[in-house]
Amino acid sequence: MTAVLSAPFTTPAPFTTPAPLTTPVPSPRHTPVVDTETIPPLAQVVGADECVPCSTGETVRYANLDYAASAPALAAVAQTVTNSLSQYASVHRGAGHLSQVTTARYEQAREVIRDFVRARADDAVVFTRGTTDAINLAAHATRGDVVVLDIEHHANLLPWCAPARDGSSRVRVVGACATIDDTLAALEAELAAAPAALLAVTAASNVTGEVLPIGRLASIAHRNGARILIDAAQLVAHRRVSMVGHGIDYLVFSGHKLYAPFGAGVLIGRQDWLDAAEPYLAGGGASASVSFGDTGTDTAIAWHAGPARHEAGSPNVLGAVAIAAACEALDAVGFEHIGLHEELLRARLDDGLATIDGVTELRIFEDSTDRVGIAGFDVDGHTPREVAVFLSERAGIGVRDGKFCAHPLLNRLGYPDGAVRASFGLGTGSGDIDRLVGALATLTTRARAR
Amino acid sequence: MTAVLSAPFTTPAPFTTPAPLTTPVPSPRHTPVVDTETIPPLAQVVGADECVPCSTGETVRYANLDYAASAPALAAVAQTVTNSLSQYASVHRGAGHLSQVTTARYEQAREVIRDFVRARADDAVVFTRGTTDAINLAAHATRGDVVVLDIEHHANLLPWCAPARDGSSRVRVVGACATIDDTLAALEAELAAAPAALLAVTAASNVTGEVLPIGRLASIAHRNGARILIDAAQLVAHRRVSMVGHGIDYLVFSGHKLYAPFGAGVLIGRQDWLDAAEPYLAGGGASASVSFGDTGTDTAIAWHAGPARHEAGSPNVLGAVAIAAACEALDAVGFEHIGLHEELLRARLDDGLATIDGVTELRIFEDSTDRVGIAGFDVDGHTPREVAVFLSERAGIGVRDGKFCAHPLLNRLGYPDGAVRASFGLGTGSGDIDRLVGALATLTTRARAR
Repeated sequence: MTAVLSAPFTTPAPFTTPAPLTTPVPSPRHTPVVDTETIPPLAQVVGADECVPCSTGETVRYANLDYAASAPALAAVAQTVTNSLSQYASVHRGAGHLSQVTTARYEQAREVIRDFVRARADDAVVFTRGTTDAINLAAHATRGDVVVLDIEHHANLLPWCAPARDGSSRVRVVGACATIDDTLAALEAELAAAPAALLAVTAASNVTGEVLPIGRLASIAHRNGARILIDAAQLVAHRRVSMVGHGIDYLVFSGHKLYAPFGAGVLIGRQDWLDAAEPYLAGGGASASVSFGDTGTDTAIAWHAGPARHEAGSPNVLGAVAIAAACEALDAVGFEHIGLHEELLRARLDDGLATIDGVTELRIFEDSTDRVGIAGFDVDGHTPREVAVFLSERAGIGVRDGKFCAHPLLNRLGYPDGAVRASFGLGTGSGDIDRLVGALATLTTRARAR
Repeated sequence: MTAVLSAPFTTPAPFTTPAPLTTPVPSPRHTPVVDTETIPPLAQVVGADECVPCSTGETVRYANLDYAASAPALAAVAQTVTNSLSQYASVHRGAGHLSQVTTARYEQAREVIRDFVRARADDAVVFTRGTTDAINLAAHATRGDVVVLDIEHHANLLPWCAPARDGSSRVRVVGACATIDDTLAALEAELAAAPAALLAVTAASNVTGEVLPIGRLASIAHRNGARILIDAAQLVAHRRVSMVGHGIDYLVFSGHKLYAPFGAGVLIGRQDWLDAAEPYLAGGGASASVSFGDTGTDTAIAWHAGPARHEAGSPNVLGAVAIAAACEALDAVGFEHIGLHEELLRARLDDGLATIDGVTELRIFEDSTDRVGIAGFDVDGHTPREVAVFLSERAGIGVRDGKFCAHPLLNRLGYPDGAVRASFGLGTGSGDIDRLVGALATLTTRARAR
């Protein structure tokens, strides 16, 4: 029902020059057309041929349209994990050959990731459980006020809401406006009105897929004396992110949205705040030396600086290696191909949804011009759960329903009971999209016939 | 050089009645004998046939004797992870069939682990990164004084050393005595002298492998009004642990020492303290609802109770599934077989080390009667690093050297510059042990010949 962007999808030739993230070129709006060309998956994911039962008694290939929650593993990632597992041994400190190999793989993973996001040479690359954990670490290390938007995923909202040690609040929530331009102006006004240490903002909405202009956001933060943290959980698998190019101080993302669902994520950014903070976890690996004084209770602890400071305990080596493997695999596919593939599928989905009466896509901004492969939508007359269950049981489609860990945004958009979200990526083909659109048409037609 | 325990190792018949952990039966001390029988590995581990280069120019099968740092994956665990990966989809909240399958696997993992450690039906099973993370979570949830021994791994020492919110110290460190009996008496005196909330103690030393009587420790804690947390990182893969049987309030361990090196660990225990604590991580999954008030800054957050409260963010599903698979695999092997296999290898190692002049095994207690497959030792005239490098380069053996994240213990034992540690498990055979003993004999003989 909404007017949606659509790109020409004649031949899958790569963009010669991918549109830079900070200055997206608006596609011309036009009347949706029905496309019948097949768009194949762009890369092989594990479990792509997995079949699931339907309520019709048939089994069908599972159409995974929940990539924004957790993407399947790329086959290349799974292969790297398998190879690493056969040579896996204790990381760090072990003198054995395979301990050295494992340690080298773990440390090399930092460098691969650093290159992938174009981080500075002296940025820390700290492995975490995922984005949520990474932002909790960032919150732990940040002193001073933090400005956020109200459209954020809870992961980039709740960690900042914890009171400071003195009990004071330090989060300042700015309401997103109807346009990105006005939203940026509101952020600038907030940062100018009172000093803040950090602007923490999502790179792409996990509800609508709309991409924010992170280069402009970074400029706003910096000219007002703040640093910027970018929650790239929903962007890093879809667009080239350049910390240097966009001026990002801290970047966080998860392996499980980057085709590497092995329990690790990452915080990348400036060392100084991280080295000045108490260790995130207390334990071995983070501690350089520990001794007791004469009384037995006056413990003297020296902590490491650098990533080890915040990585106490045996690290998730395979999780880190998996993320690095995903970075290399995405580079091998090429972001120009990834962007085009996604644009074709997104247009197909938007066009399809636009043909179905009663389906409304969620949007935050009137002037957003770039979206990753996420479509949040509402189906008139059906609860989100009903829609999701229908899609699963009748068509073997996996989508998500609810409020997507972004309650304030869903409330503001007028969906306090949630919505449905379809999201996709490298393993998705037009068959998955067409099946979703077809099933939704069946659902709504059947409802009208009652 | 030290007098060591040795068990008869004639036939590998299972113990009919495994010695209960709390009242170990001392083996008769006798003169070491040279055993020439082959003891095969007890289970298949991934990478068992991996070959590594030696400085002689040859390649040899890697002898992994660093299980106490991180054990290789059991083949059964790796297979389960592979199977789960092909059906992996977003956990929780997704309505799709594979999301449901993945969610069921994740939640079922809690139940498998609960059964494995004989936890109470209402105990929380919270997934963490590992033991260190789990004890940090426990420290986060514990109010009041905590009593620890000075022989602990840093993971069970440093989290308790963090000052309370009011800046006060709450850790009370008790020095271990020369005997376990005296150590228990000292703990009892400390707990009786002033109330404490918790006694946090290791189940088996990561330096010497000596097993502590956790049932007796639990009794001491309970009769003095404290709870007990057991760091079972070094025990749970080696002996049956029964939370109900031993009276354990909180149990923590890591997947990577349980043949499941996929980045997860676990805290199991009483719900009340966990539910009363602020969420360990702030983010989605932990939050039941989030909304802003009229001002945009007075955030109303309702948190979940139960495990979800402390598991914000997408969980490490494969890590959790791997731990559960390891539990099932160990149950299938049987702890009576595991105990006997380990006892045979440990006796072989102790006997072998006793034949080498200049090698001294580390011991904490004079009266300890049970040890898991860990031997910490010193080689006279060689730094620990020299020994570890020699073993690696000359014989393809992986051991660990250093202070094993137990600096206070190494200092007390008189090894401020560290020691060497060999440790083993299900994938170890007598060939690995014999290779270690032979290489150490070569090293020390060569040194004397100079």
